[in-house]
Amino acid sequence: MMKKIAVLTTGGDAPGMNPAIRSVVRYALHEKVEVLGISRGYWGLINDEAEWLNHRAVSGIINQGGTVLKTARCPEFKTEEGQEHSFQTLKKYAIEGMIVIGGNGSFSGAHAFVMRYDFPCVGIAASIDNDISGIDTTIGTDTAINTALSAIDNIRDTATSMERIFVVEVMGRECGFIALQVALAGGCEEVLIPERKFDLKEVCHSIVEGNIRGKVSWIVVVAEGAGRAEDIAKKITDMTGLETRAIVLGHIQRGGRPTALSRDLALNLGRAAVDCLLKGGTDRAVGMRAGKIVEVPFAQAIAKKELQVEDMYRLIRVLS
Amino acid sequence: MMKKIAVLTTGGDAPGMNPAIRSVVRYALHEKVEVLGISRGYWGLINDEAEWLNHRAVSGIINQGGTVLKTARCPEFKTEEGQEHSFQTLKKYAIEGMIVIGGNGSFSGAHAFVMRYDFPCVGIAASIDNDISGIDTTIGTDTAINTALSAIDNIRDTATSMERIFVVEVMGRECGFIALQVALAGGCEEVLIPERKFDLKEVCHSIVEGNIRGKVSWIVVVAEGAGRAEDIAKKITDMTGLETRAIVLGHIQRGGRPTALSRDLALNLGRAAVDCLLKGGTDRAVGMRAGKIVEVPFAQAIAKKELQVEDMYRLIRVLS
Amino acid sequence: MMKKIAVLTTGGDAPGMNPAIRSVVRYALHEKVEVLGISRGYWGLINDEAEWLNHRAVSGIINQGGTVLKTARCPEFKTEEGQEHSFQTLKKYAIEGMIVIGGNGSFSGAHAFVMRYDFPCVGIAASIDNDISGIDTTIGTDTAINTALSAIDNIRDTATSMERIFVVEVMGRECGFIALQVALAGGCEEVLIPERKFDLKEVCHSIVEGNIRGKVSWIVVVAEGAGRAEDIAKKITDMTGLETRAIVLGHIQRGGRPTALSRDLALNLGRAAVDCLLKGGTDRAVGMRAGKIVEVPFAQAIAKKELQVEDMYRLIRVLS
Amino acid sequence: MMKKIAVLTTGGDAPGMNPAIRSVVRYALHEKVEVLGISRGYWGLINDEAEWLNHRAVSGIINQGGTVLKTARCPEFKTEEGQEHSFQTLKKYAIEGMIVIGGNGSFSGAHAFVMRYDFPCVGIAASIDNDISGIDTTIGTDTAINTALSAIDNIRDTATSMERIFVVEVMGRECGFIALQVALAGGCEEVLIPERKFDLKEVCHSIVEGNIRGKVSWIVVVAEGAGRAEDIAKKITDMTGLETRAIVLGHIQRGGRPTALSRDLALNLGRAAVDCLLKGGTDRAVGMRAGKIVEVPFAQAIAKKELQVEDMYRLIRVLS
Repeated sequence: MMKKIAVLTTGGDAPGMNPAIRSVVRYALHEKVEVLGISRGYWGLINDEAEWLNHRAVSGIINQGGTVLKTARCPEFKTEEGQEHSFQTLKKYAIEGMIVIGGNGSFSGAHAFVMRYDFPCVGIAASIDNDISGIDTTIGTDTAINTALSAIDNIRDTATSMERIFVVEVMGRECGFIALQVALAGGCEEVLIPERKFDLKEVCHSIVEGNIRGKVSWIVVVAEGAGRAEDIAKKITDMTGLETRAIVLGHIQRGGRPTALSRDLALNLGRAAVDCLLKGGTDRAVGMRAGKIVEVPFAQAIAKKELQVEDMYRLIRVLS
Repeated sequence: MMKKIAVLTTGGDAPGMNPAIRSVVRYALHEKVEVLGISRGYWGLINDEAEWLNHRAVSGIINQGGTVLKTARCPEFKTEEGQEHSFQTLKKYAIEGMIVIGGNGSFSGAHAFVMRYDFPCVGIAASIDNDISGIDTTIGTDTAINTALSAIDNIRDTATSMERIFVVEVMGRECGFIALQVALAGGCEEVLIPERKFDLKEVCHSIVEGNIRGKVSWIVVVAEGAGRAEDIAKKITDMTGLETRAIVLGHIQRGGRPTALSRDLALNLGRAAVDCLLKGGTDRAVGMRAGKIVEVPFAQAIAKKELQVEDMYRLIRVLS
Repeated sequence: MMKKIAVLTTGGDAPGMNPAIRSVVRYALHEKVEVLGISRGYWGLINDEAEWLNHRAVSGIINQGGTVLKTARCPEFKTEEGQEHSFQTLKKYAIEGMIVIGGNGSFSGAHAFVMRYDFPCVGIAASIDNDISGIDTTIGTDTAINTALSAIDNIRDTATSMERIFVVEVMGRECGFIALQVALAGGCEEVLIPERKFDLKEVCHSIVEGNIRGKVSWIVVVAEGAGRAEDIAKKITDMTGLETRAIVLGHIQRGGRPTALSRDLALNLGRAAVDCLLKGGTDRAVGMRAGKIVEVPFAQAIAKKELQVEDMYRLIRVLS
Repeated sequence: MMKKIAVLTTGGDAPGMNPAIRSVVRYALHEKVEVLGISRGYWGLINDEAEWLNHRAVSGIINQGGTVLKTARCPEFKTEEGQEHSFQTLKKYAIEGMIVIGGNGSFSGAHAFVMRYDFPCVGIAASIDNDISGIDTTIGTDTAINTALSAIDNIRDTATSMERIFVVEVMGRECGFIALQVALAGGCEEVLIPERKFDLKEVCHSIVEGNIRGKVSWIVVVAEGAGRAEDIAKKITDMTGLETRAIVLGHIQRGGRPTALSRDLALNLGRAAVDCLLKGGTDRAVGMRAGKIVEVPFAQAIAKKELQVEDMYRLIRVLS
């Protein structure tokens, strides 16, 4: 059985990475496996930035946003040289398996590395973008949704008091998941997402119609992949003549205390990833689907996530 | 097709009841069905406290805790007379179906009413106790867990700073679900639940052992059904000689802004309940299981919920 | 003694306006004075949008952001015609005094109105911008600061995890008060405010120096009156070569549940405004200075607020 | 000038102690003064638990509740022997002055120590109880008030939905400050504090009268020094026949992220304490009064704090 594994966080940080690290470390130690913590993701792997983690090293981080292992984007890991340096680092510490906590791009890198060196790698899906196929949600999504929702609740106060239109841009470059959840929970009037073509003229038409009936405030949620808030706000003003403000929530959604769900997911997946590695699993991510822990091959996990949007979109419109 | 339905909230209030009401009302209106709002649950049904709800009547409540329809416990509804009065009220307004938003006891009452009058009733599971079988969680559970977790995070600050033992009592008269989720997400050292026998001597033994190794703070989560915080704290002090404080979270967990998940669940189930009623469904609750909306007959929904606790309990102990 | 007064909220909404309204209404009623609520600020005054408010009308709003009376910007109130219409509205309802809840611009309008008609007007300073002279803080400032601080805490998670520079734009067109408070409480490295000339070259110089010593993350807070986050971020990237992100908090800071301090201030000032009006006070705002309620003539209240910034600025720099 | 000072936190922990430590350490280092951190308050002083703190040692704690230096109650410090051990520890490290972060009891101890050894000691008032005379509020009070208020907001949801009476016990053994602030900001109907005699019969009388007029929910806030929630709830039930629930907020109020105000106060007082010590100040606490930093001799600071309660009490009653 494995005696030494490595763990790293890579890509954009997500709330829940810290409890995931905690779970990997403590569960592995409990299984008599030592854990090497790599700093700054693949960059630290290439540049040999690492230290052994004990029970205490992950104390007090369960409710902290971000990642104590730090993270970075690292294009060098896509190069042969970068991978070779990484492999040497792992050999140097006699590491037998690696757990990668991150999103789509992170798994892509891990997959290439497994292909090249046949080195056991298991992923834990942690990413704000909820962009991993084959699982329900990534670690951090629930926190990001609640943070965005709280911002929308605040904006609603002003939208109602000042009778204005707000266009609020939330995270989601290729996926409208957060936008849909937030728009529904926030009672928003319209949502624009990359998965669904929209015609701003129709949106404006519906606003003008509502305005004639006496409706005076709107919140339009837009996933960043569907357009920029400022452009959309400007067009709405131009087409309707109504004052429209743009707000970009941006990085606020990335940080903050992980919610119970983000933590519990992270803690369960930390154990699952260690178990998977110890049982010989590799080239795959662990995640939760329909209430059960599943293993999804990296190649499948990084494929485009299909989201059923029509049903939810209709509900948002009916309830607004 | 039905043209007039009634909606009420009954039993203990839960965060998310308001978005559920909003969804029932707006979705029904969209389906050309009128909605009568009954005040104070079955009590209002017996005493004819009701008014028609339009689109605007449920405006601005999506992020409010509690229930604008108010709620009450109502033993009279268990009597023949109470049921007969209720039936007369429904007849008076020409109501053809009823949606009951509540928990275990509420569905029990609805089931008896259906049995007696063959009157179409559909339930929406909303309850802090997560005590409904056949579904994953009730509306409000996620909010209650996050509220309790936030309290535990606060308590942890003092537990660590003052090096003390805290016994924290959370909701759950017959079910340790909230206790387990909170204990895991809060990094708590021990959890006592009704589903699992425990020996306080063992707990104290493990505390004393930890104390010898240098551990100085503990949080013991106890579901109310497993014992009273004050009693347990006293016994721990007696057996270990260490200062132990009791905290009862109580009704704090019941209120507050519903989380995104509690709201989205409520909004989806509101639609599902109306659809179920319109399609001829009765004597059943709608809920979410494994990411899908399901219908569970009342008789089954009110049966004792089985919770797999061992796996989660072990994880809590390993990670603490 | 007066028997009928009017109350309105005007200008940008601020968290705490609702408890202020509650206090004005309930305290006035207690003093046997009727209260007319004007909708949409001066616009409603001009257009006769008003209704009498009873005890119950202000129930349940104490913890709500925004304003139930709604608010609007209203250039027409600066015209003779607008003022004349307003005066007619007040005469129509036999109003003997008016309470204006708002900021700088609102008091300016009220002052002109008093000058013209000698109509008793008392102001309550409620504004995110904390732009009223002669008092410590306006209603809403404490809430806005805490909302911005919570966002900064979130951003810090990513700044630390990803080792980046963030430029965060907070409210404050002419006043750096929020920026200074938030930068200090958030442990931010730099703050740019309108009251204090700054040289971006020096800021970048200090960043580069820090970077050489190993410092890897910065948060630069900028009051909107001191520059646009995006421009500043771009310049920092250009000058330092380090990745820099811009975030505009914007309207998120305006809404949300008022904090205890914002509520208590609002509730005290509501009473004070009614008392002031009943004692014959006019052309002045009530506010809190050094823990005591003070009355500041409008002409003085709308003068440029002087802020001692050097001391606080130095503390921010020393502690970062 | 002094070259070496010590800092410790003692008594009950309060949110804001960490930013106070941060400020003391960083400001002192900036003034070329070394800082020794004593663990566990006076206990660590007696038992020589200490280490030098550098700039980095206080990194990342500005938004954390509790205290990284830990704290403890320490009766031994009241003994000659305890004081002598403490003095020896200070001599061992060549400490020339000490900063004590804590409350009433902590200052009492420091005062005795100064009397005995003429050793320079300056206090920073940090305590949930707001029990220090001569200053407006202690560090942590604003956070505790907001935490309690948030709990009250939650309870209000249930009180309104289920039409019940709640008795909520908040911190304040000898001082009703928190109770008054929270009762006002929470729109509570009644508040019982140690500074003001009350007759529960009158309270019940007013409840019954309200109930006859149709009022159905009450929140009665009680400072712990004025009675136990459970007893009071029982008596209300007995006297009115209405269902009444007791809730004790307890230690939840102690922890959590410090608010902006608690942090800013802590950061300002940290600097002020160092400045005071360096200028030869001793036997005194620094605090904020009427917006200005003041120095209050320990003997005066620990005297009974007089609170003007009538005015605020009346406002609470009028507005409820």
